[in-house]
Amino acid sequence: MTAPTASILAQDLRAGRRDPVDLVDEVFDRIDAHDDPALFIRQTRDRARAEARAARERLQAGFPASLLDGVPLAWKDLFDLRGTVTTAGSAVLRDAAPAPQDAALVQAAMRAGLVTIGTVNMTEFAYSGIGLNPHYGTPRNPRAGGVARSPGGSSSGSGAVVAAGIVPLSIGTDTGGSIRIPAAFNGVVGYKTSTGHHPMDGVFPLSPTLDTLGPLAQTVEDCVLVDTVLRGLTAPRAVACAATEIDCVIPDAVMFEDLDPAVARAFDDTVQRLSRAGVRVRRIALPELFETAEIIAALGPLTSVEAAIVHETRLNTPDEARIDPRVIRRIRMADKMTAVDLSRLLSHRARLIAAVGARIGTSLLICPTTPSVAMPTAPLEADVEEFFRHNFRTLRNTALGNFLDWCGLSIPNGIDGDGMPTGLMICGTHGRDTALLSAGLTLETLVRG
Amino acid sequence: MTAPTASILAQDLRAGRRDPVDLVDEVFDRIDAHDDPALFIRQTRDRARAEARAARERLQAGFPASLLDGVPLAWKDLFDLRGTVTTAGSAVLRDAAPAPQDAALVQAAMRAGLVTIGTVNMTEFAYSGIGLNPHYGTPRNPRAGGVARSPGGSSSGSGAVVAAGIVPLSIGTDTGGSIRIPAAFNGVVGYKTSTGHHPMDGVFPLSPTLDTLGPLAQTVEDCVLVDTVLRGLTAPRAVACAATEIDCVIPDAVMFEDLDPAVARAFDDTVQRLSRAGVRVRRIALPELFETAEIIAALGPLTSVEAAIVHETRLNTPDEARIDPRVIRRIRMADKMTAVDLSRLLSHRARLIAAVGARIGTSLLICPTTPSVAMPTAPLEADVEEFFRHNFRTLRNTALGNFLDWCGLSIPNGIDGDGMPTGLMICGTHGRDTALLSAGLTLETLVRG
Repeated sequence: MTAPTASILAQDLRAGRRDPVDLVDEVFDRIDAHDDPALFIRQTRDRARAEARAARERLQAGFPASLLDGVPLAWKDLFDLRGTVTTAGSAVLRDAAPAPQDAALVQAAMRAGLVTIGTVNMTEFAYSGIGLNPHYGTPRNPRAGGVARSPGGSSSGSGAVVAAGIVPLSIGTDTGGSIRIPAAFNGVVGYKTSTGHHPMDGVFPLSPTLDTLGPLAQTVEDCVLVDTVLRGLTAPRAVACAATEIDCVIPDAVMFEDLDPAVARAFDDTVQRLSRAGVRVRRIALPELFETAEIIAALGPLTSVEAAIVHETRLNTPDEARIDPRVIRRIRMADKMTAVDLSRLLSHRARLIAAVGARIGTSLLICPTTPSVAMPTAPLEADVEEFFRHNFRTLRNTALGNFLDWCGLSIPNGIDGDGMPTGLMICGTHGRDTALLSAGLTLETLVRG
Repeated sequence: MTAPTASILAQDLRAGRRDPVDLVDEVFDRIDAHDDPALFIRQTRDRARAEARAARERLQAGFPASLLDGVPLAWKDLFDLRGTVTTAGSAVLRDAAPAPQDAALVQAAMRAGLVTIGTVNMTEFAYSGIGLNPHYGTPRNPRAGGVARSPGGSSSGSGAVVAAGIVPLSIGTDTGGSIRIPAAFNGVVGYKTSTGHHPMDGVFPLSPTLDTLGPLAQTVEDCVLVDTVLRGLTAPRAVACAATEIDCVIPDAVMFEDLDPAVARAFDDTVQRLSRAGVRVRRIALPELFETAEIIAALGPLTSVEAAIVHETRLNTPDEARIDPRVIRRIRMADKMTAVDLSRLLSHRARLIAAVGARIGTSLLICPTTPSVAMPTAPLEADVEEFFRHNFRTLRNTALGNFLDWCGLSIPNGIDGDGMPTGLMICGTHGRDTALLSAGLTLETLVRG
């Protein structure tokens, strides 16, 4: 990664070595130079320059608004920006009413002096892990060579803009893996916060019970910094700890089935490095994870039910035909689910969260973020069943964490023979965000080698 | 009420003026003398005498197990008693396997030295507010004259045994009003705890999200005492406060529609007495209560869905025909509900709990427990639609509290022209049990006049 991190940019800005307005201009120059029209849904050049000028004044006066005053960032296009249309990656919202105000987190970013450069592409309505978008195009995975590969989804643009070095930070959302998958596929870091960690007001929902948000960035440190300033804090709660203080568990679980050989090898190599560095790594039985996967398969996905409510006014109208049929098919899975199915699912969920939490305790769970690296997109565009097979497999490991209400971090973990990145996922139970990020700061060096 | 309260019995026992074994014998003599075969489902005479002998030893040694050591109580027949069958008021469980151990609360009662004299009748599977039971008979309402009247439900036997002066305490459960309704109909006090206040292990469920338990007794003080010792505490948390410290709200809500004139008059008279005594009483707008009633009517009851899961193995088997069709009809309401209906219901519920809680704050809400006094049962036995009309009306006020996750107390509030009691309900938001009981101790005198 040759582009400077948010941390380095922030230091340069505070030291007067860089100017925030120049920085914004450089971002837009890079956007113009990068020949992928599918990255951005909307650029907010005027807003960005105005915000950068305000940051310049604060920085020159020696009163920065936060640790990241003047640093540019891009939003997934389901965060409301005042006066612009939130498309959620959908054609049916292209002509919707402009948002009357910024999303709560965008307001927090403004208070911290972060500079909004625009909104980036995503899977329509955030509903797939692959990132294909028939309306705004599918962002190219910047790590791929000649063959176009998946940028991951649903925060497809967020992963791609950071990996391409265009902008150091992008805020995505994660309902089944939508931050961590693009992070793994593009070789960047992605942090899915615990539910309730940040306000979701003004964020277009997929499944309110499971929806979370968080940053994609080049480093764990950048994730810590942006999370810190978005919470209005002046110093990070998470600090790197000694490797010997970190306690990881590897479950004998569904997460290790059907892995690409390169993914399995990268994971095993990293576990050896962690152990040698003094990290405590234990293999444990977690039969509840198999059970979780079986229960979801038998009863249906919670996301479908809640998405069917979000999109109620669009289903059975002419709009339905304008929505990606791959998205509609997943929403329509709710049609087959009864109230009894859902009630049973929710009570299993409460039981499994408690049971798995009791087994894991304060340890962190590690596994590959995704079973494969980013796959070529052409076969998935050509064959819808092939798409669903890959989509299901790609979401498998991350979605378990959403169902069990965990927080999680994906860290780049080597590459396969084609140079495509793999990801290591670190998960904590609900609310253990600070411990997760503290361990992440230490583990990142060991994982990346 | 001529029978001594639990508080007086406990004082007499500690002072050596009464003997716990004699007390148990008196209870069984009263049961034999009371000509209602539908009160008890099971008497545990041997267990009661053994427990009373152990209490006698502790009391004679001067080391009582709790404030209520040696006081007899009766359980609704859905609490497991080790070695006996829990029927839940159903014929299909008459030959079920005996419970392997006592319910958690029965164990707590044992530790407190309370003496278990048996289990009392109830609506089959706890699913109605009227108390009719075609399998074990319908307990007579002891307050009724020549015409048999509803004992209230579903804790029908619990209300009747306390009102008849047979036993000073009975523990019931409340999912839609099943403690508070029998309390109101029989002229005793009923306390519905907040969800999670006591463990539900070993209690046959109706709807696990809404199920709660609590005592029926002659006085608020008795409810406080039994709640105290069941929680393993040595002294009550709730203590009577000055009337002027109590802040009540009366909502402009569905709870005041279609009241019996005698019920409305008793409520209005009491409000005047409370105001004169210095209790702060405000009338407030609570449109969310109308909305709650509308939402449940439109989307279906949560109880049905959860009951359909509890009874899954009995539905569509020969057992189904052996269950009261009035109960089956309510369980079968779940058949029409989709996952989307339930998801919408749950998200409205979360929103309304927050919205109503914000309006009420730390005030206590007061209203009539039921819109009518106990009605004659013959017309309800004869006409199923008449039964459902009355059942719906009877549950209306109390069920709002279960849906909104409140705690509640029903206090006898005068009688109508036929001498039938009416109840005043005091409700607090979730977890405000101590404030509710403290106010109840003070208000009881004012309410009962």
